[in-house]
Amino acid sequence: MMRRRDFMAAAAGAGIGAASGGGSARAAETSKGKAVLKLSCQEGVMAGRDLKEKLDNLEELGFAALEPHGGGLPQRVDKYKQALEGRNVKISAICAGFQGCIIGVDPDDRAKAMRTMKEILTAAGQLGSTGMIIVPAFNRAKALPHKEARVLLTGFDRWDRRKTHDPKPLLVELGEFAAQAGTRVVLEPLNRDECYFMRTLADAASMCKDVSSPGMAMMGDFWHMTWEETCDMGAFLTGGDYLHHVHMASRRTRRIPTTDGDADNYVVGFKGLKAIGYQDYVSLECGGPKDQGERKKVLANCVKLLKEQWEKA
Amino acid sequence: MMRRRDFMAAAAGAGIGAASGGGSARAAETSKGKAVLKLSCQEGVMAGRDLKEKLDNLEELGFAALEPHGGGLPQRVDKYKQALEGRNVKISAICAGFQGCIIGVDPDDRAKAMRTMKEILTAAGQLGSTGMIIVPAFNRAKALPHKEARVLLTGFDRWDRRKTHDPKPLLVELGEFAAQAGTRVVLEPLNRDECYFMRTLADAASMCKDVSSPGMAMMGDFWHMTWEETCDMGAFLTGGDYLHHVHMASRRTRRIPTTDGDADNYVVGFKGLKAIGYQDYVSLECGGPKDQGERKKVLANCVKLLKEQWEKA
Repeated sequence: MMRRRDFMAAAAGAGIGAASGGGSARAAETSKGKAVLKLSCQEGVMAGRDLKEKLDNLEELGFAALEPHGGGLPQRVDKYKQALEGRNVKISAICAGFQGCIIGVDPDDRAKAMRTMKEILTAAGQLGSTGMIIVPAFNRAKALPHKEARVLLTGFDRWDRRKTHDPKPLLVELGEFAAQAGTRVVLEPLNRDECYFMRTLADAASMCKDVSSPGMAMMGDFWHMTWEETCDMGAFLTGGDYLHHVHMASRRTRRIPTTDGDADNYVVGFKGLKAIGYQDYVSLECGGPKDQGERKKVLANCVKLLKEQWEKA
Repeated sequence: MMRRRDFMAAAAGAGIGAASGGGSARAAETSKGKAVLKLSCQEGVMAGRDLKEKLDNLEELGFAALEPHGGGLPQRVDKYKQALEGRNVKISAICAGFQGCIIGVDPDDRAKAMRTMKEILTAAGQLGSTGMIIVPAFNRAKALPHKEARVLLTGFDRWDRRKTHDPKPLLVELGEFAAQAGTRVVLEPLNRDECYFMRTLADAASMCKDVSSPGMAMMGDFWHMTWEETCDMGAFLTGGDYLHHVHMASRRTRRIPTTDGDADNYVVGFKGLKAIGYQDYVSLECGGPKDQGERKKVLANCVKLLKEQWEKA
């Protein structure tokens, strides 16, 4: 049970960013500075036949970080640590990789999600990662009804009252675990074809506000935003201090940006990232040419385009 | 069936406002000009013992419009027309007043909602109103499951495909009816205690985008936004050209602004309204002192506060 009236009223006048009241583990670092464009790339998207080649290309092309998949990450921590030694590249977010469904109808399904998420969070913390990306329920999952699921995650059944929970609301428990591991849980809204449950950045940000845990964060993916949002800038402002990761793809075919010509316009979104002083990564999650040489060329063009659009924003 | 890829891709680069592609009946008027603060007041909120006294006070206090309740409006059109004759006051939005539930489980409940909404829309058009405010389902209503309800309203079960409907998706039908009547349907997101189904401006704007009808619009209410949104400016940017009404109350106790001291800060929201070139009304929906003289004094202070904050924004 927790009353938020006084807190929220006080926060209502604070800046244009989200009224987070400590919504992120690194709020002091992330909400105050001038925004920077730090590019990241998913491991599977980067050109290269193995991790070493991928990291070589990453550095050469001007990327700042790698985004690994979370599946089996605990067994791969040492591999990444060794591969990154002496390089100017960091680990950005960890992309999912857990099993089960945190809002599944079956309690075992929920327990499996919590257990495997915590394993990955521990590994993510060891790698200094921004956070582990989670989707509460893909459409294929057998999930609880919408409102029941949200209350299970956040504990709030009313705006001014957190329902007593034993155990804790799941995202409160997970957020606390993440913060202790030195990382974050990052909610990713998807378009309705993949996750009907959470489609807009505003909804994800609202859950972060409800949870109000230092390890709780959210992200935006330009691909999904193309279909579900009406204004990229508004969406990122809504994310505010809760926003700790961004995914990027071309806006018609979900390939490497530049693939779709004029449609690949991210300037309005970048304006939003600048307005909130965004300090985390913009990371490629998209398809690309099969030929590795061709892929590297497209990635180079992509970096050029994104840097130009960042300057314009 | 309708593919939106090409349209959306083209719209993605257009300004910071919502990529509406003609989302409002008066887009040309509302999206281009410099924003203006035009204050409105619900009939029940304005000081005065009858309509004439209320309109006298409205004009004296510097309000630009009155917001009547929609119940029985068809029978009151002449009354309002006569009362407004020769005055510098207009009708802003019409607040609900329909019966039934547009996403009710019972088809009769849905049919009753559609029928009574259309009656009010016709009257709203006769009065030159901005639009009729609707809430898809208050929590007390027996409504369809979340996704089923949204598809029934908008027709989209996937982002790129409108499910074939016979009859039309309900909001498409209603939006077209509203446009022909010279007015709009205005979706109002409420906080979770009143309407769990639609809580954020982003969700309402997303429905407007899906419906893409000239008579389809949405609004924001600072009271509900206090609890459900993380950033007033982000929320209004998301509304963009779809945004055609705003409700206002003090931010702790839902009374006339100024009642709650420093909590009554609307500057960040006003920045958002200015950014989208908002041209419609900001209308008081809130409680106030029982004594009519006292109420008039508080309303005068409120007008002063809102004008000051608008200047500051």
